Amino acid sequence: MSSLIAVDLGGTNLRVALFTRDQPPAAELIKIPTLASEGPDVVIARMIEAIHSILPKKKRGLRIGVGSPGPLDPFDGVILDTPNMPGWKNIPLCARLSEHFSCPVMLENDANLAALGEWRHGAAQGTQNLIYLTISTGIGGGVIVDGKLLRGARGLAGELGHMTVERNGPECGCGQRGHLEAIAAGPAIARKVLERIETGESSILTEMVHDEEPLTAAYVGRAARMKDRLAMEVVSEAGRHIGRHLASLVHAFNPEMIVLGGGVSRIGHPFFNAIEQALHEHVIHPMYVEDLPLVPAKLGDEAGLIGAMVMVSQA
Amino acid sequence: MSSLIAVDLGGTNLRVALFTRDQPPAAELIKIPTLASEGPDVVIARMIEAIHSILPKKKRGLRIGVGSPGPLDPFDGVILDTPNMPGWKNIPLCARLSEHFSCPVMLENDANLAALGEWRHGAAQGTQNLIYLTISTGIGGGVIVDGKLLRGARGLAGELGHMTVERNGPECGCGQRGHLEAIAAGPAIARKVLERIETGESSILTEMVHDEEPLTAAYVGRAARMKDRLAMEVVSEAGRHIGRHLASLVHAFNPEMIVLGGGVSRIGHPFFNAIEQALHEHVIHPMYVEDLPLVPAKLGDEAGLIGAMVMVSQA
Repeated sequence: MSSLIAVDLGGTNLRVALFTRDQPPAAELIKIPTLASEGPDVVIARMIEAIHSILPKKKRGLRIGVGSPGPLDPFDGVILDTPNMPGWKNIPLCARLSEHFSCPVMLENDANLAALGEWRHGAAQGTQNLIYLTISTGIGGGVIVDGKLLRGARGLAGELGHMTVERNGPECGCGQRGHLEAIAAGPAIARKVLERIETGESSILTEMVHDEEPLTAAYVGRAARMKDRLAMEVVSEAGRHIGRHLASLVHAFNPEMIVLGGGVSRIGHPFFNAIEQALHEHVIHPMYVEDLPLVPAKLGDEAGLIGAMVMVSQA
Repeated sequence: MSSLIAVDLGGTNLRVALFTRDQPPAAELIKIPTLASEGPDVVIARMIEAIHSILPKKKRGLRIGVGSPGPLDPFDGVILDTPNMPGWKNIPLCARLSEHFSCPVMLENDANLAALGEWRHGAAQGTQNLIYLTISTGIGGGVIVDGKLLRGARGLAGELGHMTVERNGPECGCGQRGHLEAIAAGPAIARKVLERIETGESSILTEMVHDEEPLTAAYVGRAARMKDRLAMEVVSEAGRHIGRHLASLVHAFNPEMIVLGGGVSRIGHPFFNAIEQALHEHVIHPMYVEDLPLVPAKLGDEAGLIGAMVMVSQA
C-alpha cells in the first residue's frame, strides 16, 4: 500500500498526517504552530522536518498532498498570495517538496480540500452536487459538480466568500468591498458586537471578555447560546447574510446538499436557524430548497487533511 | 438522418426550427408571435401547429427540444413558473408534446440552451469552462463546467441574474430584492434614464423617444453610441454592476471565457468596456482574468434554437 502524506498549512497551525490506506483515520498526525511570520523558508523547513518525523521506512508509492489558503495555482503548485501569511507570494511549494522527497506533490486550496473530505468521508457522502462553505476568520468554499470537485480553468474556482453581496460594503481582507467574508465571517461578527457595546448596549460579553483578550466570534457564539440578546442578534444577522448568499449560490449551482464548516459554524443552532430561514426566504422557487439539507460538517479540523489524502489517492 | 425540432418559447416570439443535421443552419425556421396572454393551452396548440408546418414526411428519429424561460423542471419537463408569461404555472409541456408527436421531448432553460449553442457552434467553441450571460429584459446565465452544461441536482442551475448583489436593492421581477437583473437589465437601464431626465438632466433621448413610445434600453444604447452623456453614464453604470458580478462569478467558477448575449449586450463598446474594466478591478488576483476573453455572443436570436438542437442531438 502507498504512503499518503497530507499537509494542512494554516495561518495558525501546521498539520501533517500519514495515511496508509485511502481512508480515515490517519495512521499518524502531528500538529505544530505554523509561525507564518517567520517566512516561507523557515516554515517550509519546519514542514519538511514534520513530514520526515512521520514518514515510514518503506516509502513505496509516496505521495504528498498539501492544502493552503488561496489564492494558489494548483496546476503549477504555487502559492500565489495568502492574506493571512505575510511574505508568501509566488512560493513554488510543490517543486520545493517534490525536490526534497523525490515524489509527486499536489497543492490545492484548503477549502476545496475540506469540501472534498466532507464529500468523500464526512457529512456529504453519496451526494453528487454539493456546496461546502467554511466560516471562520475568512469564508471559503468548495463545490462538487456531478461528482467532481469544481476547479475551473486554472484551478482557482470555489472562492465563494469573495463574492460581492453588498456594493460599497465593508472592506474585505482581500482588498475588495462588500464580499460575504467582510460581512459575515468571525472578525465581522466580533466587530459588530464591539460597535454595539460601544454605543451603550448591554451584553454579558462585557463580563466574559477580559481587558487583555480580544473579543472573538467564539465568545459571541457562547454568549448567544446563553441567550444574550445582543450576541443572538449579531449572530442571527450574520446568519441571514450567509443564508441570502446561499440562496444566490443555490440559483447558480442547484446543489442537493449544503455543508457548513469552520469555527464560526460551531456556534450551532441560533446561527444555523438564521441561515436556513434566510435561504428559504430568498430562493426564487421553492423547488430549489425542497430536499436540500443544510448540515454541519462532520470532520472538524481534519477535513482538509482528509481531503488532501483523497486528492492524492485519486491521482 | 434524424429530424430534430428545436422550439424557442419566448415571452414575445415563438420560434420553431427543423434541423436535418446536428449542426446549424436550420433546414427550416419559422417565427410567430407567442401571444402568451392567451394562456398555455392556446399557445401550445399554436406551437404544435407550427411544428407540423415544418415537419418532414419521413419522421425517422424525430426528437423535439424546447427552450423556455425558467424556472422550469427539465427532468420532468414541466414549466414551473415564468414571470413574463402569466398563467404558465406547472405546465407539463414535454408530456403534452410527446403525447401529440409520439417522440422524445426535452425541455431546458432558454439561457442554458443559448450557452450550449454558443459553446458548441458560436463564440465559445473549443472551450471547456464557460460563463454565458444574456442581458435583455431579464438577465439569464448558463455555465459550462469541464465541457458539460452545469444543470445541478434538479436541473435548476445557471440562474446567474438572480443573485443578490446589493442588499435591499431594487425589487426584481422574481419578487426578491437587489438581484443583478433588477439593477442592470434593460428595464433598469431605461428606468434610470427616465429618473434622471425627470430631475432635469438633458439628453437627446428626450427627442428620440416620442410620447406614445416607451423608452427602452435599445434607445439608450443608440444614444450612448451617439455620445449622449446621460445615456453613456447610465450604460456604463449598468456595465459596472455586471462587471462586478462577473468578478464574483469568476471567483466561483474560474472560467476560460465569458460570452455576453441578449439584446442589451448589443449596445456594444461603451457597455463592454465598462463591464471589462469593472471585472478587472474587482478580481482578487490578476490570474483570474489573465487570458480570459470577454466576447459578444455570435449566434444572435438563434442561440437558443441551436442549443435546443444540440441538446436533443446529444441525447
